Amino acid sequence: MNERDLIRSLKSLFAPVDRNGDFAVPFGDDMASVPQSQKLIWTTDMLLDGVHFDSKKHDCFLIGRKAMAVNLSDCGAMGATPRGALCALAASAEMTERQILRLHEGAQEIGVQYGCPITGGDSNRWQEPTVFTITVIAEVGGYGPVRRDGAKVGDTLWVSGPLGGSILGRHLTFTPRVELGLRLAGPSRADAMMDISDGLAIDLSRMMEASGCGAVLERDALETIIHDDARELSQEDGVAALDHALYDGEDFELLVALPSNADMDQFTMLGLTRIGTVVDAERGIQISDGKHSTPLPIRGWDHFE
Amino acid sequence: MNERDLIRSLKSLFAPVDRNGDFAVPFGDDMASVPQSQKLIWTTDMLLDGVHFDSKKHDCFLIGRKAMAVNLSDCGAMGATPRGALCALAASAEMTERQILRLHEGAQEIGVQYGCPITGGDSNRWQEPTVFTITVIAEVGGYGPVRRDGAKVGDTLWVSGPLGGSILGRHLTFTPRVELGLRLAGPSRADAMMDISDGLAIDLSRMMEASGCGAVLERDALETIIHDDARELSQEDGVAALDHALYDGEDFELLVALPSNADMDQFTMLGLTRIGTVVDAERGIQISDGKHSTPLPIRGWDHFE
Repeated sequence: MNERDLIRSLKSLFAPVDRNGDFAVPFGDDMASVPQSQKLIWTTDMLLDGVHFDSKKHDCFLIGRKAMAVNLSDCGAMGATPRGALCALAASAEMTERQILRLHEGAQEIGVQYGCPITGGDSNRWQEPTVFTITVIAEVGGYGPVRRDGAKVGDTLWVSGPLGGSILGRHLTFTPRVELGLRLAGPSRADAMMDISDGLAIDLSRMMEASGCGAVLERDALETIIHDDARELSQEDGVAALDHALYDGEDFELLVALPSNADMDQFTMLGLTRIGTVVDAERGIQISDGKHSTPLPIRGWDHFE
Repeated sequence: MNERDLIRSLKSLFAPVDRNGDFAVPFGDDMASVPQSQKLIWTTDMLLDGVHFDSKKHDCFLIGRKAMAVNLSDCGAMGATPRGALCALAASAEMTERQILRLHEGAQEIGVQYGCPITGGDSNRWQEPTVFTITVIAEVGGYGPVRRDGAKVGDTLWVSGPLGGSILGRHLTFTPRVELGLRLAGPSRADAMMDISDGLAIDLSRMMEASGCGAVLERDALETIIHDDARELSQEDGVAALDHALYDGEDFELLVALPSNADMDQFTMLGLTRIGTVVDAERGIQISDGKHSTPLPIRGWDHFE
């Protein structure tokens, strides 16, 4: 069994049971269904020392903040209102009581700010690196969640902010796009939405695979959404700044597919930047310079989904 | 700051916000409130390789089963009906795809059996020992959850089954007391309830501290609830079987305080065994041989909870 087979097996194992629910979310979206509820969806994210943060370098308050913020970002990606959180900690032997408290304070501060307080948890000590898991429950609005599988040929593709180089610090301090996500789940709503956690290229390929479509990205537009951090990193490591924007991950901006008849000015005013178009699946994911299109290599942060 | 200060600080940090909710559960019970919901409560448990299971010895299916069952046990302890689960995994480098699937199958099988399917999750790989977190949401019945802080002087104390020696294997295969918990949350209901996860002595002391009471356990009664596994372990390690019953933990039986006017026969028929009485807080936790009472030493599995 390889990882692709594993994911397929897990998908069938976790197939939502409330298939008749109006708001059921299929397995593999940013959040999952709460069985027997039409209104509630939930998500969980596990942060690992040495993978998602570095306890030797990063402040515990910011690590806790990130653990909550990645879940809030998932709420934004579905267009749902966060309501509450639970946390589970395995603290390394090196972590002091004060650091443990700071970790929780960082999570609780941004949680409360977004109406999503922690109400309980599970705390443990062990001799290995620290693990911090937060689970968030959210309420879906009257128009339902925005799933990632709803993109249609002819839709336009947008991102909510500049990408790349988040490793310079932004991955700890980013603003989860909760309000914007709610706005895009309203009456004039997105066809598909997700947050960019593993890199634009791989996350776009996931949205297109889920939607049964392909996409063409415009190189000129991509140049405008390269984050200054990506340019800075490019100067350090010699990797093209555009590649940082396409592949780095942990941007936690929204990737949005808007209907072809959408009022573009309205969405530009919300801070969205148009980067491409949804096309037939056979065309795959391409990048165009206006004259020629070439296939976009898909790679990025893959943690078996 | 010591661990006691930490717990106090965390309690005030996580104080539930829905204080006006009829079913709000205070921080530190087996499950926590879902904000803005009168019906739903939730819980999360993180299982660590080398602490809660041993990936070198234990079958992945049973590890997954345990990860779900400890959460179902919390539902039983509150008298709530489990509804659904989320899981988060950090798989060690040694774990094969087939083992990862088996882990999830073990969790999903017992989850579905109790009406609590997994609907989504978060999967990661890392170079450290495996961590598996499951979060469960449950629905409270019309009489509300049974909290651990409701024991009253004069109540009788009961356990739902024999204790001790779970390390011989039962900690992986126990039956979560969901149906019994629901029964005890109905019209003729318990004053207080929790599951015995860290050992009868320490968990009883927590229930009494939360309730502002003390307790007297009857040695004769305790002798009748020593599990065969405790006796077997006693022969191996020379520790008294009663001490295994009092201190081992991971029994996942219910500890129940029943009102003084409860129909005892009715509860005996449910499989409960009476082990003692709730008394004034000043008397602490004691053990009585019918003539004399002595303080019961309190120790057990403490993970700064």
